[in-house]
Amino acid sequence: MRVCPPSGLLRMMTSETSNLREQFRAAVEAGEAERFEECLSALPPADAAEALEELDGERKATVLQRLRPATLVPALPYLPAEEIEEILGHLSPHDLQEALNSYPDDDLTDLLQKLAPDTRRSYFSLLRGRKREAAHRLLEYPETTAGGRMTTAFATVSEDMTIREAIETLASQREETEVLSRIYVVDDQNRILGKVRLRDLTFNRRSLLVGDVMQPEPLALLATADQEEAAQLVAKHDLVTLPIINDNNQLVGVITHDDAMEILEEESTEDFEKQSGIAGPSAERDYLDTPVLSHFRRRFIWVLGLAFLAITSGFVIHHFEGVLNSAFILAIYMPMVVAAGGNTGAQAATTVIRAMALGEFGPEQFMRAVWKEMRIGFGLGSILGFCIALQIILFFPGGASMLPPGMAMSQVALTVAFSLAAQVTASTILGAALPILAKALKQDPAVVASPAITTIVDVTGLVIYFTLARLLLGL
Amino acid sequence: MRVCPPSGLLRMMTSETSNLREQFRAAVEAGEAERFEECLSALPPADAAEALEELDGERKATVLQRLRPATLVPALPYLPAEEIEEILGHLSPHDLQEALNSYPDDDLTDLLQKLAPDTRRSYFSLLRGRKREAAHRLLEYPETTAGGRMTTAFATVSEDMTIREAIETLASQREETEVLSRIYVVDDQNRILGKVRLRDLTFNRRSLLVGDVMQPEPLALLATADQEEAAQLVAKHDLVTLPIINDNNQLVGVITHDDAMEILEEESTEDFEKQSGIAGPSAERDYLDTPVLSHFRRRFIWVLGLAFLAITSGFVIHHFEGVLNSAFILAIYMPMVVAAGGNTGAQAATTVIRAMALGEFGPEQFMRAVWKEMRIGFGLGSILGFCIALQIILFFPGGASMLPPGMAMSQVALTVAFSLAAQVTASTILGAALPILAKALKQDPAVVASPAITTIVDVTGLVIYFTLARLLLGL
Repeated sequence: MRVCPPSGLLRMMTSETSNLREQFRAAVEAGEAERFEECLSALPPADAAEALEELDGERKATVLQRLRPATLVPALPYLPAEEIEEILGHLSPHDLQEALNSYPDDDLTDLLQKLAPDTRRSYFSLLRGRKREAAHRLLEYPETTAGGRMTTAFATVSEDMTIREAIETLASQREETEVLSRIYVVDDQNRILGKVRLRDLTFNRRSLLVGDVMQPEPLALLATADQEEAAQLVAKHDLVTLPIINDNNQLVGVITHDDAMEILEEESTEDFEKQSGIAGPSAERDYLDTPVLSHFRRRFIWVLGLAFLAITSGFVIHHFEGVLNSAFILAIYMPMVVAAGGNTGAQAATTVIRAMALGEFGPEQFMRAVWKEMRIGFGLGSILGFCIALQIILFFPGGASMLPPGMAMSQVALTVAFSLAAQVTASTILGAALPILAKALKQDPAVVASPAITTIVDVTGLVIYFTLARLLLGL
Repeated sequence: MRVCPPSGLLRMMTSETSNLREQFRAAVEAGEAERFEECLSALPPADAAEALEELDGERKATVLQRLRPATLVPALPYLPAEEIEEILGHLSPHDLQEALNSYPDDDLTDLLQKLAPDTRRSYFSLLRGRKREAAHRLLEYPETTAGGRMTTAFATVSEDMTIREAIETLASQREETEVLSRIYVVDDQNRILGKVRLRDLTFNRRSLLVGDVMQPEPLALLATADQEEAAQLVAKHDLVTLPIINDNNQLVGVITHDDAMEILEEESTEDFEKQSGIAGPSAERDYLDTPVLSHFRRRFIWVLGLAFLAITSGFVIHHFEGVLNSAFILAIYMPMVVAAGGNTGAQAATTVIRAMALGEFGPEQFMRAVWKEMRIGFGLGSILGFCIALQIILFFPGGASMLPPGMAMSQVALTVAFSLAAQVTASTILGAALPILAKALKQDPAVVASPAITTIVDVTGLVIYFTLARLLLGL
């Protein structure tokens, strides 16, 4: 019997990982190459990658020069592309070749896609037979398609093999296959006939045929489809792998569950960013590692555009100068009417955009969604109007003294209440309708999210408020 | 050799699925029980669930009465809890028992957790031996912990088994285990010693010991940890399963990759909702199926609170009535200064909240994040101020006529430019700092997202603008 490892070692909880990373940093500072190599190889690859990323430029260079490729390579897929390029640049030609060829092929493609054409060509020439072929095939598809994100390291068997033969085939491919939990059964044209799980092979008599134990595979996606569609299929059907096919129905790759998770996270982040007016593709680096200038670049364009749009609101206020001057008390409730529209419009937009991102409905249900939001908006606006009117009448004792002669607080309350009902209803409808329209026009619905909606309904809010004030207060 | 199925059948793309769903709906309308049963069982379970959900109340009841449990049960885990309860309520006691016992145990717990105590007890009594035990164990942990989301249907072997014995053990458990891609090696106290993959067993000599082929398992999480932590570990390390342990280091369950994806999606949705001031836990139903009233309830509280907060802005404007009356031209740029703060504050908040949600940094890096945002904010504000000042001087020909005597357009431009620089810098700092502070105080950072930030910086914007106007224009 073996000696049990101390149970503590089994629980590399966050605290223990950070302990090891602490030791790594200390060893780097002390320049103890053996110790930092040891710490790094004891860390899970994702944490090793993070520990490396944290080092400053000079230290990183020293560490990278001293690390053996065997320690370095497992961490590579967890690093952003720019880092990998830097690291690979430090390797000797021989180590570089080893590293590239041991790299999972979907990550490799991801990397190759991001390199400058020169570097790409030189790396490409270092790839060996099968790997080069895989990279070549993957590079056919744009980066954001299912084909661009798939791995070609999947296993296939044919249906007339015995289970014994299938297991032998798989055993001979095993170093090159990333996933064996789903094995595809293909015909001689490489078209999918079905799938088997490794357990179906392991637990059955070895003389049975693969065709006897295989199950149908009803799902497959074209390599040219959007990566988001692939990720949504994986999420919706709880798949381990989704087969990706070309126009001839041939199996060309698989999207794995971890690729899908990564795609969904990227898309969520992009939606979050669009929702606050941050433009362009997400940075690959973590927040703190992204330079100030590149944060700036992604934010400025919306800030500038919305600022010019917001001047419209200013002209609306200016236009109603007379109304405001006759009853300056209206200024007190002006920002609130405007903001209530912005808030409810943003709520409607977020809800609709998120529901569409999760595939809950499409533009063809436009009317149902708008009708729903109209009722929600009318409810929110009326009840909010009622609450604020109550507040004006009951808790604003100094209010009456601010009024021009002949005007009553109840009239102000009524104006504010009606404005809120109208503004909130209009904003909610706009907030729901604009993203759906964007989607119907094949645009990303998230582009017309909160900041755009808020700025647009600022204008409607002011027009509604001052127009109603004119009518109801006789100004 | 078998006859190849027509290749079209292999590609149940979105269009084919919706075709089948169309046929299902038609069959339901025509009341053809056999045909709708056929369509439903041909659909992937997730789509079958959606097709059922789409039916209106009366039709659904008819369909459910006629469907065989064998068709119904695979779709259950893909339905929201309320639907499942409804469906189970239609089953005969015998079918109900069958359905409950064939249900994956993490989904079962999920369901049990959502039921009224009475129904829960009655369902519980229908569970058989092992299933009841599993449900009992899972119900110990709150719904939002790793323990509440894990499945207990994992496989274990011991290290002194031969591979042959291990395969026999697994074969006998195989109907009850959800995942076999990661098999845990445990000691007699059920503590993790390592892991093997099914391929390690299948491809090795059967006389070897499990201990000879097992690999270390450095990651495990306590069952009481937050579900989000579990999901983030799975995502970060690209895991198929994450082992979950109790305080005695014993393996009690696993979080699978599909659970993790679901958790991350739920958390993202909640963050999106908080970011627009939508309160409370996400609805389980799809957007269009959620009643207007429950949308209303989740939105109203923030709308009301923010409306009252926005009245503060009104009082600020009212307080500066004199300044505004002396140079009403200031009204034109007032909404823009305010909105620029709201937009940039929301950008900072979103970026920081998302980075923290992805685990990119924590409250201990507060100063680094705020320093970064300060520089970004100062850059955005200064350049925006410059652009707007230019616009005022060059493209606002009618402007000078609106000015009181003795005031120049350049002074207005300077006031607006300085206000923008100050307001955008302040808003960006606030937008970054408030979510980090919330997190440091163990609150959800997303709560102080866009709507709260926007409303707060409305006030700072007005104060900054009018104070600078007083100083620079001598009002």
